[in-house]
Amino acid sequence: MTREELIKQIRTKQSFLCVGLDTDIKKIPQQLLQADDPIFEFNKAIIDATAPYSVAYKPNLAFYESLGVKGLLAFERTVAYLNENYPEQFIIADAKRGDIGNTSQMYARTFFETYNLDALTVAPYMGEDSVKPFLAYEGKWVILLALTSNKGSHDFQLMGDAQGTRLFEHVLTKSQTWGNADNMMYVVGATQGEAFKDIRRHAPNHFLLVPGIGAQGGSLHDVCQYGMNKDCGLLVNSSRGIIYASNGVDFAQVAAEKAREIQEEMARELKAILPAF
Amino acid sequence: MTREELIKQIRTKQSFLCVGLDTDIKKIPQQLLQADDPIFEFNKAIIDATAPYSVAYKPNLAFYESLGVKGLLAFERTVAYLNENYPEQFIIADAKRGDIGNTSQMYARTFFETYNLDALTVAPYMGEDSVKPFLAYEGKWVILLALTSNKGSHDFQLMGDAQGTRLFEHVLTKSQTWGNADNMMYVVGATQGEAFKDIRRHAPNHFLLVPGIGAQGGSLHDVCQYGMNKDCGLLVNSSRGIIYASNGVDFAQVAAEKAREIQEEMARELKAILPAF
Repeated sequence: MTREELIKQIRTKQSFLCVGLDTDIKKIPQQLLQADDPIFEFNKAIIDATAPYSVAYKPNLAFYESLGVKGLLAFERTVAYLNENYPEQFIIADAKRGDIGNTSQMYARTFFETYNLDALTVAPYMGEDSVKPFLAYEGKWVILLALTSNKGSHDFQLMGDAQGTRLFEHVLTKSQTWGNADNMMYVVGATQGEAFKDIRRHAPNHFLLVPGIGAQGGSLHDVCQYGMNKDCGLLVNSSRGIIYASNGVDFAQVAAEKAREIQEEMARELKAILPAF
Repeated sequence: MTREELIKQIRTKQSFLCVGLDTDIKKIPQQLLQADDPIFEFNKAIIDATAPYSVAYKPNLAFYESLGVKGLLAFERTVAYLNENYPEQFIIADAKRGDIGNTSQMYARTFFETYNLDALTVAPYMGEDSVKPFLAYEGKWVILLALTSNKGSHDFQLMGDAQGTRLFEHVLTKSQTWGNADNMMYVVGATQGEAFKDIRRHAPNHFLLVPGIGAQGGSLHDVCQYGMNKDCGLLVNSSRGIIYASNGVDFAQVAAEKAREIQEEMARELKAILPAF
């Protein structure tokens, strides 16, 4: 999906919500456990219920891999269902891959050719040749970890060099010599508050994928205030706060309500910050 | 597997060779393509041929994931075959995972419970809570990226702080507050030469997993000279140089010869550097 197509979706739906499909067999409603593929049935119901309010879905690979082949099948079915029924949705594999060149090439083949996903999260530690193979696919995106939402983000990402430039800032500037705002986004945690200003100083035009509202405690209002750019430039993810909002037979309906609440807040922020958008 | 068991294997076999199972359907001998599961048949033949000369195997997940469910089945069969027939071999999933706590927990469950592997490679960018869930399993190991073998290792890993301490050194020191030499190793590329001295200054007792000899150009002699400690403390990986040494019907036999050559060089290095080992 191109940047223009993504922006158009955001404008049309007045939403920049990404629904995180962190689907855990131990947390889904009991009645689904009878199904042949409970994980897929859960995802399908969540997708159908939330698609009017979202522009993106982000299956988290760890949750599928933990079930072995069954989990991978559920992942494949989920992606195929999205591609077939909701081609306007931006699909992100949250996999945080990154390896030496010939291995990153294999990962790129997997996620962009085998599964036809739009984007993949990638860890920057191994540098240029670990990221570039993903940028060779037209219409596909790398979403590079910059400043993550977790406590451990302070361990290395904030390390400063002799000039005071921090690691996450080096990641932002150096990676812009590899890709651009049409094929690269950055992960910035919603819990990072005013650090969004530093991010925007280095990457004014890039889209940011923002996890960490809801269960992790980040504020959507702060993210918008500090992080929105003229094209919106944000995909804000919510996983647990939507998909596990109810554990009963009404789980999909309650997920839809939660997604709509977030979408309405997003519409208000868009109207306040970008009245002409 | 415990540290003592691993050292005992190295002593017995006079080898610290890890065979990398980067098995690519496009590179294996043609005659195997008739089999139900060519990837597994290839791995099985390679394992049977090289096991006398190696102490560890390292399947690279990217190569299996690129084939979807078929690839994952081949990976599962390979691991089961190793567990059943070669329980003394140390099995490493080269996956370079690492995510926020609840996601890393899922990865740990996958690799340590579902597959019963000994170790997993992990990327350090997200810090403590992305690594710690893997350390909760007794007898299991995290192998943390420190200074990798690729060109991109220069992009961020060598960044120095105001005192001149580089990122990979911070990774070494900080991670030693999370785990210890009994449950953590570090990835250090064979191409890094004298940097091994800096590594050993910060981590004198830890095992190092060393990729990059053979196809990537690193020297086994240099690695031993600068990197060996009193317990050997090295697992040196070769993938392409062994498994693709021949593409003919004799592929397993030639792989065995290549593995034996490396093992013999390792025995010589052990004798020279650690005569009492």
